[in-house]
Amino acid sequence: MAENLDLETIAARTGMVGADLANIINEAALLAVRRGGEQVEMRDLEEAVGRVMLGLEKKSRVMSQEEKERVAVDEAGHAVVALSVKHADPLHRVSIIPRSIGALGYTLQLPTQERYLMTKAELEDQIAVLLGGRTAEQIHYGGVVSTGAADDLERATALVRQMVTRFGMSDPVGPLTYGRSMAGQFIKSPFDVEERNYSERTAETIDEEDRRIVDEIHKRVTEILLKRPEPMERISPELIRKETLERAELHSLVAGGTGKPTSGCLHVKRWSEIPAKS
Amino acid sequence: MAENLDLETIAARTGMVGADLANIINEAALLAVRRGGEQVEMRDLEEAVGRVMLGLEKKSRVMSQEEKERVAVDEAGHAVVALSVKHADPLHRVSIIPRSIGALGYTLQLPTQERYLMTKAELEDQIAVLLGGRTAEQIHYGGVVSTGAADDLERATALVRQMVTRFGMSDPVGPLTYGRSMAGQFIKSPFDVEERNYSERTAETIDEEDRRIVDEIHKRVTEILLKRPEPMERISPELIRKETLERAELHSLVAGGTGKPTSGCLHVKRWSEIPAKS
Amino acid sequence: MAENLDLETIAARTGMVGADLANIINEAALLAVRRGGEQVEMRDLEEAVGRVMLGLEKKSRVMSQEEKERVAVDEAGHAVVALSVKHADPLHRVSIIPRSIGALGYTLQLPTQERYLMTKAELEDQIAVLLGGRTAEQIHYGGVVSTGAADDLERATALVRQMVTRFGMSDPVGPLTYGRSMAGQFIKSPFDVEERNYSERTAETIDEEDRRIVDEIHKRVTEILLKRPEPMERISPELIRKETLERAELHSLVAGGTGKPTSGCLHVKRWSEIPAKS
Amino acid sequence: MAENLDLETIAARTGMVGADLANIINEAALLAVRRGGEQVEMRDLEEAVGRVMLGLEKKSRVMSQEEKERVAVDEAGHAVVALSVKHADPLHRVSIIPRSIGALGYTLQLPTQERYLMTKAELEDQIAVLLGGRTAEQIHYGGVVSTGAADDLERATALVRQMVTRFGMSDPVGPLTYGRSMAGQFIKSPFDVEERNYSERTAETIDEEDRRIVDEIHKRVTEILLKRPEPMERISPELIRKETLERAELHSLVAGGTGKPTSGCLHVKRWSEIPAKS
Amino acid sequence: MAENLDLETIAARTGMVGADLANIINEAALLAVRRGGEQVEMRDLEEAVGRVMLGLEKKSRVMSQEEKERVAVDEAGHAVVALSVKHADPLHRVSIIPRSIGALGYTLQLPTQERYLMTKAELEDQIAVLLGGRTAEQIHYGGVVSTGAADDLERATALVRQMVTRFGMSDPVGPLTYGRSMAGQFIKSPFDVEERNYSERTAETIDEEDRRIVDEIHKRVTEILLKRPEPMERISPELIRKETLERAELHSLVAGGTGKPTSGCLHVKRWSEIPAKS
Amino acid sequence: MAENLDLETIAARTGMVGADLANIINEAALLAVRRGGEQVEMRDLEEAVGRVMLGLEKKSRVMSQEEKERVAVDEAGHAVVALSVKHADPLHRVSIIPRSIGALGYTLQLPTQERYLMTKAELEDQIAVLLGGRTAEQIHYGGVVSTGAADDLERATALVRQMVTRFGMSDPVGPLTYGRSMAGQFIKSPFDVEERNYSERTAETIDEEDRRIVDEIHKRVTEILLKRPEPMERISPELIRKETLERAELHSLVAGGTGKPTSGCLHVKRWSEIPAKS
Repeated sequence: MAENLDLETIAARTGMVGADLANIINEAALLAVRRGGEQVEMRDLEEAVGRVMLGLEKKSRVMSQEEKERVAVDEAGHAVVALSVKHADPLHRVSIIPRSIGALGYTLQLPTQERYLMTKAELEDQIAVLLGGRTAEQIHYGGVVSTGAADDLERATALVRQMVTRFGMSDPVGPLTYGRSMAGQFIKSPFDVEERNYSERTAETIDEEDRRIVDEIHKRVTEILLKRPEPMERISPELIRKETLERAELHSLVAGGTGKPTSGCLHVKRWSEIPAKS
Repeated sequence: MAENLDLETIAARTGMVGADLANIINEAALLAVRRGGEQVEMRDLEEAVGRVMLGLEKKSRVMSQEEKERVAVDEAGHAVVALSVKHADPLHRVSIIPRSIGALGYTLQLPTQERYLMTKAELEDQIAVLLGGRTAEQIHYGGVVSTGAADDLERATALVRQMVTRFGMSDPVGPLTYGRSMAGQFIKSPFDVEERNYSERTAETIDEEDRRIVDEIHKRVTEILLKRPEPMERISPELIRKETLERAELHSLVAGGTGKPTSGCLHVKRWSEIPAKS
Repeated sequence: MAENLDLETIAARTGMVGADLANIINEAALLAVRRGGEQVEMRDLEEAVGRVMLGLEKKSRVMSQEEKERVAVDEAGHAVVALSVKHADPLHRVSIIPRSIGALGYTLQLPTQERYLMTKAELEDQIAVLLGGRTAEQIHYGGVVSTGAADDLERATALVRQMVTRFGMSDPVGPLTYGRSMAGQFIKSPFDVEERNYSERTAETIDEEDRRIVDEIHKRVTEILLKRPEPMERISPELIRKETLERAELHSLVAGGTGKPTSGCLHVKRWSEIPAKS
Repeated sequence: MAENLDLETIAARTGMVGADLANIINEAALLAVRRGGEQVEMRDLEEAVGRVMLGLEKKSRVMSQEEKERVAVDEAGHAVVALSVKHADPLHRVSIIPRSIGALGYTLQLPTQERYLMTKAELEDQIAVLLGGRTAEQIHYGGVVSTGAADDLERATALVRQMVTRFGMSDPVGPLTYGRSMAGQFIKSPFDVEERNYSERTAETIDEEDRRIVDEIHKRVTEILLKRPEPMERISPELIRKETLERAELHSLVAGGTGKPTSGCLHVKRWSEIPAKS
Repeated sequence: MAENLDLETIAARTGMVGADLANIINEAALLAVRRGGEQVEMRDLEEAVGRVMLGLEKKSRVMSQEEKERVAVDEAGHAVVALSVKHADPLHRVSIIPRSIGALGYTLQLPTQERYLMTKAELEDQIAVLLGGRTAEQIHYGGVVSTGAADDLERATALVRQMVTRFGMSDPVGPLTYGRSMAGQFIKSPFDVEERNYSERTAETIDEEDRRIVDEIHKRVTEILLKRPEPMERISPELIRKETLERAELHSLVAGGTGKPTSGCLHVKRWSEIPAKS
Repeated sequence: MAENLDLETIAARTGMVGADLANIINEAALLAVRRGGEQVEMRDLEEAVGRVMLGLEKKSRVMSQEEKERVAVDEAGHAVVALSVKHADPLHRVSIIPRSIGALGYTLQLPTQERYLMTKAELEDQIAVLLGGRTAEQIHYGGVVSTGAADDLERATALVRQMVTRFGMSDPVGPLTYGRSMAGQFIKSPFDVEERNYSERTAETIDEEDRRIVDEIHKRVTEILLKRPEPMERISPELIRKETLERAELHSLVAGGTGKPTSGCLHVKRWSEIPAKS
């Protein structure tokens, strides 16, 4: 193993322990052997993390040029927002190589350490990064969005709903929690449905707040992307050309970027969202 | 096998792999033998695709002349819209020969390649083709529609609902997702019911948007069919005469048609929708 | 077997095949033997169809004279409407002999051939025949209706609901489908309950349309029966006297009738609808 | 057996057949032996019917004088209404001797023959008899009703609801059926719950109609009992004295009564309705 | 056994029979032996009834002085109301000795005989006794109520709901029943949930009537306790001193009381209602 | 064992008995041995209580400095409110050392004795202590709250809901109970869902009252923390430095504090509330 290997950082970033971590190290060893390296190096570990979290690369899947461009615009949108907002996890890699678990592309953010608490501002920035892909599509394609954002919208909706109904982060709704999780209360399955133990009027207030918060963040994301069109214009074609951009490349592309370390998550474009044709 | 066989295209168009694909090739081989051919040719493969996807032809099922005409008008409607809108998959064949899986007729569109993303415009054109059959009936029979459109309406409704509640494609509803799928959350079955985790007011907005989008597309489809009555008038009687029209025939019938390759799906008229008589 | 036997017609009219059809032929053979006939004749087959679909005659069940009159009025109402509207299946027989499956009487319509599609006009005429019994009761008894119409009302309601929510046949509701069947989605049973995936406001529009359509048809049926009181006055007493009237008798009773072949279904008066006495 | 025994009448009146009927005859034979009779007589059969339908007499259960009076007033109310309305089944016996199945008293009406249909007027009279007990209580106790009417109210409510939602007997609701029975659709049990497949506005109309019809009948019952206070005043004390009054006694008590045969059901006062004390 | 033992009275008062009754007699025999008595006496039987219905005394459970006072005020409130209203069951004993089944104290009323019917006035007085504890707390502690009344409120609510929806005792709601019990309709358990088979508007009327009736009774109870503060002031401290007060003591404490026999139930203060701490 | 050991106090404070208590004593013995003590002392017992209730300390879990500060502010908020309100249980210890059961920190209050009743004022103070953490965050971070308060908000909401719907502590809602627990009524699991047996209008009133009460308490907590900023300013940094503060230290830090014994619960900051990153 190369001496600069930092297993603890890998563990902290991925939240993986024990057998999962061992799995990653084995994978990294294999990759090192395959590339003829003498040592397991950091790049091997990082590729191994990607493989375990995302599945194998599926270069055989041929996307149309149009689709590739969509995915590139989308991922570039996530990346630029992740590099622009204050509380995003550091951006690690952006890729448009499909993965076997159903990803059309992904934006990989790895936290610098484990997180136990999140502030309202941090949650809002997380939602902002999620909305970055769709907003980039809107701007680039004159409002003609695609099905590719469904996963991001679902996760943004889940986050904003928790802000409003779990974390007391909406003043009109107030510091109470609404809805009681019924998980585990039925016979077997991980049941994520909530009991609606509140009035229709409260349901309206919750809907309004969900919408208001998402709209405000969407507006902010739109402003970020409109004020700094150059990074988008540079990252997106480069991504189509190289298919994967690492952290250093991204930072150099965002010339005039803040350069400061940023934060984030893994954003995956899936293809399972396309309505089945009969 | 004939050399011009393009198995990859078949795979891409149908989305079939492995055993299903092998099944199609066997079927094609049998068809080639039966017609006394020396090679499995493309037409054998295509007929085989139809057999596997649609079941056997059921020429023994005798429809009344009136019903045949209805089905022909309906399928011609799908075909003309598929040849007129920008984002439909290429039209392959139209038929009014009943099939064993319950089809009264069908319109077969095969995509030129696999699709992973769909834009709002593409979804709207897919809905337009679905509404084509019923709209043709409305025009041809002075508004007296039949039960034959039930399947198309159900699929159009499902698509528009996804546009509004999954893909953020309605501005009044906004870039949030609504309803949480409960599939797999109950004991066994593929349960497609959604949790209604939103207020009655939001439910009204969703209903209004579903309706508005379908109405706009229906209006557009009506205009397409009214502006170009000739293709309808040519395709429908020809379909009654020949029962099946292939791509080339369709394009030549649509003289004055764009000629450019178009897109599409498989539209099947089923007979299961007739209310049972006691 | 008599040479004029037309098994295919029997099959087409009843929708029965295979074992069911064989069952009918056996039954017909027995009936022929019992009546000392040398051949199975059409009348044997038709009686056999009735036996299999309706169960045995239960002449032992003694209805009061009042009840018999009610049933006769009701069946005559179905018959006159079936002979008056344009799209009803041909009327075959009307009877007030109770049957073992719980029928107090029945009106038998047999289609001339299998049907795969139904138009809005045909569905409305089917509802009209269903409402014929109750409307005849209303007219004959000065508005004092009975429990005997429950089955007809339930079937008329189911049909009108399909027109509105499945077949896009109501303009205020539009060409979308509403409600998702949950049949087969729960553990076992044939579960016919629908998910209500629409807003309360849409539910009101659906209710209004169901009501409006039924009211219009009811008004039409009332006009038919009021404009032609003679057939009612002739059929009903004749039915009490003879208990069963065949097609020819019915047509001759409806002097001044259109004479043209008409259409229809089987309308059965059941006795299971009477509220149980404690 | 006495020659005047009319088993068919017993069968028709009770709706019992086969083993149940045999059970009644055995019981009647035992009763005849016990009273030292040489023949099974009609009174033995009738007592046997009561035993099988109502369980054994429980004279050991000691009701307070107040309660006895309440029950007598209640049963007298049923009886007077049964003797006054046009469409009630003939009154057979009234009793305030408790029975083992939980009855505090009962009013026994036996139909003259099996019934297969009921008119709106007949259903309304059936509800009137049901409301007779509570209305008599209201009049006799100056509005201070008791828990004894719960069973009657539940049955009256079930009947009026069927009139409105099953039999099309309410004009504001119209000739459609509302609510789909889910009986047998869940896993096991006789599930009498209905799917509410209609809008809130329709639910309001149904509630209003249920209420209006019951209120009108209640008003009519009140008028019957107020206009003819003598029968009530004669029957009730006589019932407390003799505990059971047979048909002939009842008719002679209702001097000035119509004398014509009337109709009815079995009305049982149960004690299970008293709220349990902790 | 002492000759004055009245087992029938015990049976009538408790509603116990067979094995339960035998259990009580055994318990009484043991108590007689333990106290060195030669005969089982009435006091032994009564203590035995208490043991079986309430579990063993738990003098080891140490309540704070404040809590003891609360419980004493609460039980005194029940007692004074039970002695003041017309239709309460006779008051037998009041105690603040905790019992093993979770009681902090109890008020024991034993009916003079079995009851099969209850009038509206009797139900209202039963609710009045239930509300007596909480109202006494309100008066004594200047409105600062405690969790101790939860059980009483739940039972009062259940009674008033039955008055309104089962017994037709509310004029605005009328003589119909609302809600259909689903008990036993699901797979196993004693399921007390009701089907809501009525409209939202009816639900509001029911809520309003529940509230109005409870408010009126609460007002009456408040007036009873305010008009006669002396009994409260005498009973409550005496209860803290002696822990248990028998019927004779209670009557003598309520000098100026009516002296007439009153009615009642068992009111138990439980501790299970305290919200669990973390 | 040291002579000053007070096992009864431990039992009373924790509510533990039998095997659990024995478990604590064993744990305490091990702790005494490990620290080389000759006797099990009170501090051993108290540490043992913490271990059993909270799990092992997890000093290995490294929180960021920012997170530590958040947790310290939050716990200090609980502590200051617990020391300021009249009815809180005595404060025992505050800690920001993570525990294996998922706690980021905790505030331990131990009651001086078992409690069987709680007054409205006591419940409100319990809610006040629960809101203390979040309010301290709001003040210290200028309104930027975090996910750390989710658990507190959920428990405060559950308490206020019980006040309003179980304990009759809201005048607009009144002395009735609302909602019927369905626990144990379904097949297996501890099902805490309630039947909503009341109207939408009542649901609104309940929501309004829940909100009003929490808002009033939140306002009071804010005033407490704003009027006495010094304790917060002293406790929070000291907590970061020492990680755990015992009762005596807390009281000395709150110079100018009331000094009187206070009340409380265990408030645990968990990390399971952070929205999972994909």
